[in-house]
Amino acid sequence: MSESDSFGELRAHVRRIETLSGIEGTLDWDQQTMMPPKAAALRGEQQALVAGLAHEHISDPRIEGWLADLEGTEDPVRAAAERNLGRTYRREKRVPADLVDALARAKSEGFGVWVAAKKSDDWASFQPKLEQLVSLSRQRAAAIDPDRHPYEVLLEEFDPGTTVASLRDTFGRLRDGLVPLLEAIAGAPALPAVDRTFDVAGQEALHREVAAALGYDFEAGRLDPAEHPFTSGMGPGDVRITTRLAPDDFFGGLGSTVHETGHALYEQGLPHAHRGTTVAEAASFGLHESQSRFWENTIGRSEAFFRWLAPKLPGHFEGATPDASALYRAANRVEPSLIRVEADEVTYNLHIVVRFELELALFEGTLAVADLPAAWNEKYAEYLGVTPPDDTRGVLQDVHWSSGAFGYFPSYTLGNLYAASMGRAIEAALPDLWDRVADGDFAPILGWLRERVHARGHLLEAPEIVREAVGERDHVADLLGYLWSRHGALYGVSRPEGV
Amino acid sequence: MSESDSFGELRAHVRRIETLSGIEGTLDWDQQTMMPPKAAALRGEQQALVAGLAHEHISDPRIEGWLADLEGTEDPVRAAAERNLGRTYRREKRVPADLVDALARAKSEGFGVWVAAKKSDDWASFQPKLEQLVSLSRQRAAAIDPDRHPYEVLLEEFDPGTTVASLRDTFGRLRDGLVPLLEAIAGAPALPAVDRTFDVAGQEALHREVAAALGYDFEAGRLDPAEHPFTSGMGPGDVRITTRLAPDDFFGGLGSTVHETGHALYEQGLPHAHRGTTVAEAASFGLHESQSRFWENTIGRSEAFFRWLAPKLPGHFEGATPDASALYRAANRVEPSLIRVEADEVTYNLHIVVRFELELALFEGTLAVADLPAAWNEKYAEYLGVTPPDDTRGVLQDVHWSSGAFGYFPSYTLGNLYAASMGRAIEAALPDLWDRVADGDFAPILGWLRERVHARGHLLEAPEIVREAVGERDHVADLLGYLWSRHGALYGVSRPEGV
Repeated sequence: MSESDSFGELRAHVRRIETLSGIEGTLDWDQQTMMPPKAAALRGEQQALVAGLAHEHISDPRIEGWLADLEGTEDPVRAAAERNLGRTYRREKRVPADLVDALARAKSEGFGVWVAAKKSDDWASFQPKLEQLVSLSRQRAAAIDPDRHPYEVLLEEFDPGTTVASLRDTFGRLRDGLVPLLEAIAGAPALPAVDRTFDVAGQEALHREVAAALGYDFEAGRLDPAEHPFTSGMGPGDVRITTRLAPDDFFGGLGSTVHETGHALYEQGLPHAHRGTTVAEAASFGLHESQSRFWENTIGRSEAFFRWLAPKLPGHFEGATPDASALYRAANRVEPSLIRVEADEVTYNLHIVVRFELELALFEGTLAVADLPAAWNEKYAEYLGVTPPDDTRGVLQDVHWSSGAFGYFPSYTLGNLYAASMGRAIEAALPDLWDRVADGDFAPILGWLRERVHARGHLLEAPEIVREAVGERDHVADLLGYLWSRHGALYGVSRPEGV
Repeated sequence: MSESDSFGELRAHVRRIETLSGIEGTLDWDQQTMMPPKAAALRGEQQALVAGLAHEHISDPRIEGWLADLEGTEDPVRAAAERNLGRTYRREKRVPADLVDALARAKSEGFGVWVAAKKSDDWASFQPKLEQLVSLSRQRAAAIDPDRHPYEVLLEEFDPGTTVASLRDTFGRLRDGLVPLLEAIAGAPALPAVDRTFDVAGQEALHREVAAALGYDFEAGRLDPAEHPFTSGMGPGDVRITTRLAPDDFFGGLGSTVHETGHALYEQGLPHAHRGTTVAEAASFGLHESQSRFWENTIGRSEAFFRWLAPKLPGHFEGATPDASALYRAANRVEPSLIRVEADEVTYNLHIVVRFELELALFEGTLAVADLPAAWNEKYAEYLGVTPPDDTRGVLQDVHWSSGAFGYFPSYTLGNLYAASMGRAIEAALPDLWDRVADGDFAPILGWLRERVHARGHLLEAPEIVREAVGERDHVADLLGYLWSRHGALYGVSRPEGV
């Protein structure tokens, strides 16, 4: 078969995989926003069927031949297809079918056990399930590559191209740099909150205005409320965002919408013409998170952003005053807390560092699952200065481990790191950046991201895309510099020398 | 293989077909209610993939063996599975793949051409497409069974168990019986309309109240607005209804909601424990329509219904008076019109008779597609006394033919016929029927339908289910009797002897 026929078959096959993934995404979006409660069992059956078909497709033995035909190709899209599809195929192929089954069952059961355990603060009921999930995941890592660090094998599923060694170094330096900032902030007076509630209909209208202004295409998406906000990228023309709306959480809701809009702008800007080659897909979870965190924090919590937003408030909320400075200060309150998803941008990464260090210890065998709650609480006391009163607000708070997603957490902080360097690069490229933000002119920012990140798709691995976009930069230094700059000024504290 | 293993495999296979159909239904519901406009091409790709998988499943050659193992079974569920699955399988198997492809392409193109042709009143552009669709459908009928009436072969897809001979007789008698009723009504003064508009938010709240009162389970479904109302039965726990809401069309909207609720009550009441056997599915389009039309008209346009509903109106609409008699009269205005979907219950069946006679002539070869517009206009003049001013409001008004759905229209009138006999049987079984309706106590009616219709699923063919439910009845006599009774009283006209 000619290389071109072979690549045509590969494209048709990958396109089916992508289409199945879009169907899964649609079913999942519906489940979280629209589905009636009694449909749960039926939806589970539908999703299992689609997931089974996707698995059949990704482990189709014909892939082997298509990949062989691509070896040595000089075309960058074909080379990316060989790398991306090859990795997924080889990973899937090496895991024995009975292990796939055992993991699928353990994940499905694990989720249910975790929901109940979290509800009743019952770590003991979850512990054996988690032990099983760690053990099966370790077996899975060994099956995929017995010679590599098991945690790196798992990490690869979310952030290919990132190594354990680089994370260990990066996260260590980040932790060491964050602690003094947090101490300085703790010694300063707290920033004032905004003491009023905000009508949810007004919030929703404002959020739509914000998302559209940032560049989100509502003709190719929609915004709905959901208990846990998320973005669904089903393919070209269908990228939906969700948010949460509560009268007493104006900044949480706004942050969610801007965060999900960031994810959606990435999905809407992927190079869809390359569908079927794996290049039209996101490059990594970390890069995805860089887009959401950049818009949520760098832009969406900036002083200039609130100068643009403040005058809109009186039109949406009775008696609201257009006080940009008060909004800016309230949106940037820093306070060590127990719950990751509610954390401010300074303490957020410490929540991730805790999880990364614990996951690494679990997979290196230096920490037993049984000792996890105590280790969790120790690290929270050490890094954040808070101690969970129960496991519900401690080791049981996140869903990830219950569904066997080990290696996922680092992507959150990778996102913040990438975002910090992109922020620096965009500030350098657009000297009037903050004037434009204050004018609500976000197009140049989106243009920069579209060209250097979104349109690259998965042509290169995420670290390379970032390198080409921002140059050789120290992401930790960029993130610490950004945080000291904003929060130092807000809290009136200065960075000690040598920190 | 033992009969029981074989039946287990059949069940697992049919269950996958049913699950695929539920996925198709979810994608379709989403498309008509939620999907952003730019997702159209992507959704088409998703639907084509699911449809292709469904076709692969229904023409899987293993079905042959499973069916053979069921031959002569005395278990009624297995016998029904053999009959239902066997029919679908044999039909699919006999149609050559290139004809399947050609029809799929012609349908997909036909729909687009029809949309444009209807919009610009351009019959000439649609005619060659319709000629192709009729020709391919005729080939399809011949492939399935060259010895049967081609129209009956097509009809079987929608209403298995119904013959051309019985329809010809039934529809002829119905037409002859409706014309004098319509003449009598035309000679009487028109019923007054309700001369006000109704806020759509109030309508939606009222519709929810009505659907819930009729027995629709909102925990297993939902109600949304849609341009063309429909019901999606995706499986147990997920049966969704849609309706249209316009300030100047209170009765159209209410009728739509009650109609779709009727469909949904049927779907929610199917014998879901039999999933995987074909018995948990609806028995026919005609029987489905009997449920929607029974609730919409027999119950939902009855005087007792408006006695229950009228007191609710002031709570939903400012300045509304609870005048049950005015509502009852306005809801039952009869007027020959051009458009089927807006027709009252007396003229409605004449719209269907026109289409049935034309379809039959097309497939018997006594009418050429080119002569269809003229034949259409003649029949409208003859049966309804109206003449379409253009083809948009004439031969081009319905979507069905553009997607090759020949043999579908009769199910609408079959539904009205079945509903009329069910109405008679329910009146006999529940002597205080109308007092209960006036009290908003619809449970005994639903109970009767659940036991005798819904819970039967597709155990028997629709005509047998109806026979067992109502006894040996003349459906035409029941429908004419019902219409004369309600509209004779409303219009003050009496049925001439011998009509």
